[in-house]
Amino acid sequence: MSRLNQNEDSLVRRIARAFAHEQGGGRNTLKGEVGDDAALFAPRRGYETILTCDWFLEGTHFLRDKHPADAVGWKSLARAVSDIAAMGGQPRCFLLSLALPQACTGRWLDEFLGGLGRAARKYCCFLAGGDTTRRKEILINVTVVGEVREGQAVLRSGARPGDVIFVSGRLGEAELGLRLLRSAKAVANKRTAAVKKHLYPEPRLALGKWLADERLANAMMDISDGLSSDLPRLCAASGVGASIEEGKLPIVPTATDKRTQRYDGLQVALNGGDDYELLFAVPREKAARIPRSFQDLLLTKIGEITRGRAILRKDKNNRKLELAAGGWDPFRKKN
Amino acid sequence: MSRLNQNEDSLVRRIARAFAHEQGGGRNTLKGEVGDDAALFAPRRGYETILTCDWFLEGTHFLRDKHPADAVGWKSLARAVSDIAAMGGQPRCFLLSLALPQACTGRWLDEFLGGLGRAARKYCCFLAGGDTTRRKEILINVTVVGEVREGQAVLRSGARPGDVIFVSGRLGEAELGLRLLRSAKAVANKRTAAVKKHLYPEPRLALGKWLADERLANAMMDISDGLSSDLPRLCAASGVGASIEEGKLPIVPTATDKRTQRYDGLQVALNGGDDYELLFAVPREKAARIPRSFQDLLLTKIGEITRGRAILRKDKNNRKLELAAGGWDPFRKKN
Repeated sequence: MSRLNQNEDSLVRRIARAFAHEQGGGRNTLKGEVGDDAALFAPRRGYETILTCDWFLEGTHFLRDKHPADAVGWKSLARAVSDIAAMGGQPRCFLLSLALPQACTGRWLDEFLGGLGRAARKYCCFLAGGDTTRRKEILINVTVVGEVREGQAVLRSGARPGDVIFVSGRLGEAELGLRLLRSAKAVANKRTAAVKKHLYPEPRLALGKWLADERLANAMMDISDGLSSDLPRLCAASGVGASIEEGKLPIVPTATDKRTQRYDGLQVALNGGDDYELLFAVPREKAARIPRSFQDLLLTKIGEITRGRAILRKDKNNRKLELAAGGWDPFRKKN
Repeated sequence: MSRLNQNEDSLVRRIARAFAHEQGGGRNTLKGEVGDDAALFAPRRGYETILTCDWFLEGTHFLRDKHPADAVGWKSLARAVSDIAAMGGQPRCFLLSLALPQACTGRWLDEFLGGLGRAARKYCCFLAGGDTTRRKEILINVTVVGEVREGQAVLRSGARPGDVIFVSGRLGEAELGLRLLRSAKAVANKRTAAVKKHLYPEPRLALGKWLADERLANAMMDISDGLSSDLPRLCAASGVGASIEEGKLPIVPTATDKRTQRYDGLQVALNGGDDYELLFAVPREKAARIPRSFQDLLLTKIGEITRGRAILRKDKNNRKLELAAGGWDPFRKKN
């Protein structure tokens, strides 16, 4: 239900109100009001500031009829927070840029703000400001500001030959969730683990911080576009190659479930996006310090960093094949 | 000319390259590479961080066939930098979120990056990161990170009854420029002052910083949507009213030019957007310290802050009328 007398100022006030109760913890961080020209943020001494932004666009990243509004709210923040986790940092506040059709300024907006607010509370990341406008399609851009102790950020560029490559969680699960969601006649069952992971991803903040605090990772990134696209990015930034073993990948079993048995768990693990798991390279002498799981989150050794630039995958017959980037790329020519 | 083998990574590299020569001054500020998960920013001790973001969307904020790509680049950064000026701060770096049609990844993008780069150099605001994707229409979102000495930021909320209201520059000039641009058969003459102001606005950084350094303004904001919409926002944030005199507004003479004589300079000054001039409230006892011009920029006393909540305009017959918000509001019902 759209509101007839809606204008931009009242929209900004509604957004600010939705977060008013949650800003307590942010008060020391933020000055000024939502609606001021800009937000003021007091950086802590001894910390560096981390900045990241992410598009979340109707039709490109979500579908209005398939993705519940509160999942759109949750995920728009969670995926940007995941970039902070991938540096070993902690989120502090965010800016919300929102373009909405008039028809979405009522119930849709309330549910969106509900999901966004839950993510903001869970990740202690407070609304600092933003920009709103009207648009035929829903456009979202979220900027997250985080922090990390000086010199402790883990970049993509630090991997060295011999490092052991690890991933968290199960790969391809969110992609399976997306496929279940798209094939569902109406709204998919949000309680299915894969659908839940697609709709409500959980940035691996605690793991990222632990790896940074303990200086266990030479390089790290989050897997947002799929392992086959993201691993080459980490390698390119580090000037190294990699070799992974397909048999070691933490894939999701697909054969036992009627709804998923037509999908190849390995392909989905290599090329599926939206998992927001962490991919990290650990110096060989520290690899034994990585446990099999961290706070119930599976950690898996999947290969190692190599000299040269080749990115290889060893298949079940022990053949070494080139790993072709097959993840999400909005600019790649469709086949 | 679109490039056939364009993919997202190469697009990110092209954007990073376009700024590679200009990042020298930002090296101390920024660590990590464009293309990392997030950017690292080292805040200076004794400064607060200012955060702002702005939409700049094809069809809503600019037209692909009327606005040259380099003006789109310049303006997308300049309008966000203006929010930093309005707090009395200085910009440090920015994040660029860009969604592009494939057809715009060639020459259009080069020209866009040209204009964006010129603005970045001029305002010492360096590219720190961003996000790119493909989209049918050009979508831009810019986040600017700035800084201001602790406790020195000028908010909207500090105006007090009796304060004198000032504006910089001439109001309505950018709106006149837009009208000339829209009525031009082909591309409008960029050298016309009004068109230039619409296409290449100049955030009032030096003025904003001087007012903050000298603690001359109780409240400040930039006029982006038009005086009649923005003054009430400053007043609402401060819990005050205002009274302005129409006869004192620094309007643009429209009668003497054949191309502009059908426009009412006063209406355009009250309701025209995109000027990015500063609106500020100065305590009466300090008002004499505001010069008639600051670095060739006109400064004009236009009224005063009052008790109560009424926003009034005194017309040429000395009648006091309500000032109705008539500026840009994407959510207001069109007449």
